[in-house]
Amino acid sequence: MRLSRFFLPILKETPKEAEIVSHRLMLRAGMIRQQSAGIYSWLPLGLRVLRKIERIVEEEQARAGAVQLLMPTIQSAELWRESGRYDAYGKEMLRITDRHDRDMLYGPTNEEMITDIFRSSVRSYKDLPLNLYHIQWKFRDEVRPRFGVMRGREFLMKDAYSFDLDQEKAVESYNRMFVAYLRTYRRMGLTAIPMRAETGPIGGDLSHEFIVLADTGESAVFCHSDFLAKEIPGEDVDFDSDLSPIVADWTSNYAATEDVVDMAEFEAAVPEEKRISARGIEVGQTFYFGTKYSEPMGAKVTGPDGKDVPVHMGSYGVGVSRLLGAIIEASHDDDGIIWPASVAPFHVGVVNLKPGDDLTDGACEDLYAKLEAAGIEVLYDDTDQRAGAKFASMDLIGLPFQVVGGPRGLKDGLFEVKDRRSGEKEMLSPEAAFNKLKAALTV
Amino acid sequence: MRLSRFFLPILKETPKEAEIVSHRLMLRAGMIRQQSAGIYSWLPLGLRVLRKIERIVEEEQARAGAVQLLMPTIQSAELWRESGRYDAYGKEMLRITDRHDRDMLYGPTNEEMITDIFRSSVRSYKDLPLNLYHIQWKFRDEVRPRFGVMRGREFLMKDAYSFDLDQEKAVESYNRMFVAYLRTYRRMGLTAIPMRAETGPIGGDLSHEFIVLADTGESAVFCHSDFLAKEIPGEDVDFDSDLSPIVADWTSNYAATEDVVDMAEFEAAVPEEKRISARGIEVGQTFYFGTKYSEPMGAKVTGPDGKDVPVHMGSYGVGVSRLLGAIIEASHDDDGIIWPASVAPFHVGVVNLKPGDDLTDGACEDLYAKLEAAGIEVLYDDTDQRAGAKFASMDLIGLPFQVVGGPRGLKDGLFEVKDRRSGEKEMLSPEAAFNKLKAALTV
Repeated sequence: MRLSRFFLPILKETPKEAEIVSHRLMLRAGMIRQQSAGIYSWLPLGLRVLRKIERIVEEEQARAGAVQLLMPTIQSAELWRESGRYDAYGKEMLRITDRHDRDMLYGPTNEEMITDIFRSSVRSYKDLPLNLYHIQWKFRDEVRPRFGVMRGREFLMKDAYSFDLDQEKAVESYNRMFVAYLRTYRRMGLTAIPMRAETGPIGGDLSHEFIVLADTGESAVFCHSDFLAKEIPGEDVDFDSDLSPIVADWTSNYAATEDVVDMAEFEAAVPEEKRISARGIEVGQTFYFGTKYSEPMGAKVTGPDGKDVPVHMGSYGVGVSRLLGAIIEASHDDDGIIWPASVAPFHVGVVNLKPGDDLTDGACEDLYAKLEAAGIEVLYDDTDQRAGAKFASMDLIGLPFQVVGGPRGLKDGLFEVKDRRSGEKEMLSPEAAFNKLKAALTV
Repeated sequence: MRLSRFFLPILKETPKEAEIVSHRLMLRAGMIRQQSAGIYSWLPLGLRVLRKIERIVEEEQARAGAVQLLMPTIQSAELWRESGRYDAYGKEMLRITDRHDRDMLYGPTNEEMITDIFRSSVRSYKDLPLNLYHIQWKFRDEVRPRFGVMRGREFLMKDAYSFDLDQEKAVESYNRMFVAYLRTYRRMGLTAIPMRAETGPIGGDLSHEFIVLADTGESAVFCHSDFLAKEIPGEDVDFDSDLSPIVADWTSNYAATEDVVDMAEFEAAVPEEKRISARGIEVGQTFYFGTKYSEPMGAKVTGPDGKDVPVHMGSYGVGVSRLLGAIIEASHDDDGIIWPASVAPFHVGVVNLKPGDDLTDGACEDLYAKLEAAGIEVLYDDTDQRAGAKFASMDLIGLPFQVVGGPRGLKDGLFEVKDRRSGEKEMLSPEAAFNKLKAALTV
């Protein structure tokens, strides 16, 4: 993509309203724009990252056997009356009346609707296990939205729902999502620690919050430091096998959020030098809640004994839009964002220091074309801004590599290649630059 | 994808509420489920088609130079008061009050918001032309939603917005979208005819509706039959060149919807044997509306003469979710849908007639794996339903090819390969079947 044809409204000033670094950097880097309190437009750079995160989530959901569908944003209040949550939900639910005076709402979550879809078409235990998920915009009318996309009102969430014949099978489904989550976050460069959590308004018996440690996290968390060095299940993990040893390994050490922590237990379970007491950002949550919705809503299947039983359900959320904030909180420096390559909006920024100069244009255009042909996504700065502004913007938007071409270096046939994370710079020939980037960025 | 692990709730009965064939077939094929009047869930099969359509739209928008972002669904009423449309829009706008009693709405379109984004960051004519688009859910509170996704309340639309210094440049932007639309629809197997249209509530001077002819279309249309044989600009069309000859060619013959048709003009312009008087489905619309929004909302740029002028704008919609209905209306038979390969939910259905039989399982699994490895998307029916139900479902969901493996044919090492559109069947060896499908389905 040529920068001259892209839309990248970089802010020179630091926006005053932004309290945390990810919010500041997303605004400055032209990734988002606030339209109303807690409601954002995703500008082209931000949207590219959002889509990369979605793809990773989708790939890992598919690997774990979840099937994607898409439920609408607007729901009928009727469904929520069936489950009893319409009155219980409170002011965070955006309630709407349509032109025919029907009570509607903007979905804050989808347990009721997916239960309705399930009960309308599944009859037999033979069709189980089933895990259906979607990635859809939700709305929660927070009293005080803040921290940018970290606590917005309109936000993008992946929510999966599992259906099983009994608790034992439901725990197998729970374990599949648990393992998928470990892989999902790690692929984005994050270490997310599963912590015991309150089950909250969804209700249920078994639940983990997946927490990324960050100074700006919304809640205090307490865990064992061994989590930071644990291995993640590989791509070849067999989701048809018994995953309980992996889950046991990842839940054997103490980890709890402030809502449920028992300090005496924490101190008894974790040697002092291994105790982490920090702040954390919740990036996902898994629940097993049994028949809480299937019972009142009549979602039943016929079991092997011919009897109808309400299905056992779980739900599994990933805060897709919030993850951008979490990744930036975990990966930035004073100059700006440092994207992991897996979610970077582009892989490489090619900076032309003298557009109009034949030598520079030729070398930059050539490298740009070769990288794109190799499947590497390039933002090519072909604009006539000054060099200092170009460098600052590239650091701010945080692409993994920068390649700078100017008349001075190119006279000797050399580009400067900079690794954004380490800051290391090398002068390389076009071939060497291409080969280095290709080796670093393709699998 | 193994059917045993997919979610495909085929309906045996024809739903009574569905008045038109696309609605009936989408419900029967388990593509959608109605959640409220005019509000649908996209079940896995439907979502796969929706995503294919989105990808084609995105590729052609990018080719034409439009840059993708994503605006939120919920908008502030304030913006719409600035343009004067808040009161003008009527009951189709879903009006919402949030917990702080602020007037909000579910966006039916985005002229105001994109104008706000533009004015907040673009200052100079040097940053033009600019075309920003998104693909986002919209809501229009129709009095009487019907025809399934053809006239839903919550629907997915691609809307692009162009910004230019003056009318001449704006027409160049208009032409780029016009040409992109010709390519977009053709890639989905449709012939969409650009027709003169009323500009409606958006207002403006220059507008075309892109209409697909179909008996179930919502409006009467009148056009020259030469449109049906016209060539579409190729992949190599240069969007930086003067596109007005292409637009002139595609607008030189008479074509108008009932809202604007002048029958005397139609009859004078088109020889009797070339007159088409038919019904049509609108699948997109292009507008040039000058400074209608930029003027009241203060979206100005500094021109080359140093003076500030309001930008000239256009907007360009594609009815993404509605296109599924339009494609089915244009491509089906008594047995079900016939998907063009470009938007098919899967390319091939492999039907195992005897799961559990070693020979059949081995041959089917092997072909399934080989096709997937070649990048061909397969729905593998590994279920234990009876053969008749399997064939009926495959015809209903309309994948371009079916490959049937049973003990009788495979004893001689042969699959039956069926072309869904022509109905032709051939007995082929696994190698020949693979080669035929690969040749037909990969470019």
